[in-house]
Amino acid sequence: MDELVNKLQMDAALVRKILVEFLRQEIGKVGLTRAVVGLSGGIDSALSCCLAAEALGAQNVLAIRMPYRASSPESLSHAQRVIDALGVPSDTVDITPMVEPLFERFPDITPLRQGNAMARARMIVLYDQSAAWKGLVVGTSNKTELLLGYGTLFGDMASAVNPLGDLYKTQVRQLAAAVGVPQPIIDKPPSADLWADQTDEGEMGLTYEQVDRLLYLLVDERYSLDEAVEAGFDRAYDERGWKMVRINSFKRRLPPIAKVSTRTVGVDFRYLRDWGV
Amino acid sequence: MDELVNKLQMDAALVRKILVEFLRQEIGKVGLTRAVVGLSGGIDSALSCCLAAEALGAQNVLAIRMPYRASSPESLSHAQRVIDALGVPSDTVDITPMVEPLFERFPDITPLRQGNAMARARMIVLYDQSAAWKGLVVGTSNKTELLLGYGTLFGDMASAVNPLGDLYKTQVRQLAAAVGVPQPIIDKPPSADLWADQTDEGEMGLTYEQVDRLLYLLVDERYSLDEAVEAGFDRAYDERGWKMVRINSFKRRLPPIAKVSTRTVGVDFRYLRDWGV
Repeated sequence: MDELVNKLQMDAALVRKILVEFLRQEIGKVGLTRAVVGLSGGIDSALSCCLAAEALGAQNVLAIRMPYRASSPESLSHAQRVIDALGVPSDTVDITPMVEPLFERFPDITPLRQGNAMARARMIVLYDQSAAWKGLVVGTSNKTELLLGYGTLFGDMASAVNPLGDLYKTQVRQLAAAVGVPQPIIDKPPSADLWADQTDEGEMGLTYEQVDRLLYLLVDERYSLDEAVEAGFDRAYDERGWKMVRINSFKRRLPPIAKVSTRTVGVDFRYLRDWGV
Repeated sequence: MDELVNKLQMDAALVRKILVEFLRQEIGKVGLTRAVVGLSGGIDSALSCCLAAEALGAQNVLAIRMPYRASSPESLSHAQRVIDALGVPSDTVDITPMVEPLFERFPDITPLRQGNAMARARMIVLYDQSAAWKGLVVGTSNKTELLLGYGTLFGDMASAVNPLGDLYKTQVRQLAAAVGVPQPIIDKPPSADLWADQTDEGEMGLTYEQVDRLLYLLVDERYSLDEAVEAGFDRAYDERGWKMVRINSFKRRLPPIAKVSTRTVGVDFRYLRDWGV
């Protein structure tokens, strides 16, 4: 297991350079110089915001805080620390009035459905401000979340360009420390902040440290479940993590289209974003 | 040109069979038997709803009308005609209170930004009801819209499964007639219904009949722009249509992720939806 911890260690300086250049290029490619980031107060969005500011200059990154009525005040103040540290322009948009009409319309709505609606309302604000500010929405989903499907499709998983999608959560922590994300943001337990004392790890019943090692073996090293067990993982844990990866695979692809013609969007008509634009 | 019109003619009975089977299989594959469709009153969503009802049984398709304060009453009544003709369960959710807080928060918001926010608010309702009703959201974007990018990303372009994505708009009309979509819905000018007298063709400055032929040549037959001009298309028209295809290519793909590991989501870690689930 110790060996695995080592495998998840990155050359943070190199990865930082790659991701900053990636943002600069992908945003420049479509003729833009600006970005929009939704700051939740958590480590992922703080890191995305830092990388965007480094790539484009702080004045070109609009950071938006989007609290809900029940959001933790600490989340807001942590987001403010990032804004102050970077000197990025910022705005705060309360999403409460956008989602409460839905909650009132469907009084039996569950906390999970509420959380998904909130994540999507935030997407609406970010994409609206993307149009107003002429900047791309920078994503904040890390590899652990994308693989486990722990995120809202068309909500926090929606972005125009995502610098974190190939970093496991534990690697996000390494890079966040390297780029100077404020320490309390790095140290606090990750949370979607949908209700008091919610934590990702509590909700999933997995710790990032452990699940990152498992995913690294299964995905990056192409281990079978049996081989992961031999490497020291509990079989039940193993199967539970992999099941999340499988059942949420729809969140990592475009909706299937029935092919009835010679060339079909998303099937055999597909071009790179930079295709001659 | 006449020959092109012929090429866009379909064997409607066969395509209908394929699309119905596609819906049944794709929805069954994830262990579900139900669908949710947002009915705008237009031809695309009417057709999707008919196909879903044929695939799953009318009682298993929840049709949702989502008017905005300024939506045309005709849209609502056309949607009701589809509901009545099929006998599907239905609901009506006014999205006005969900989007007005955003419009008030940003008083300089343009009609285009408003329209995008409305399309996304409808997505929120559909996905919420997808969770409540345990049915997949059936898409309504046709090939012409997908290629031209005439639609809202994470709004009306968001779905779990899309039966229409490989049919040009003129082919949607053929199939709609074959499955019995009420004639007034087939005959009226297509409109996003964001403001009075808006029509797709007026807004884009293209008629579907003409642009479908152009796209068929460029996409399905792989003509170059020069060859399309030789085939009778005006060069300026030609270039304008193709420019829409190109600049909106980002709407047809997942957000790019910076690759820094062995296997990256959406790059080299990608499985089919039906991958062993």
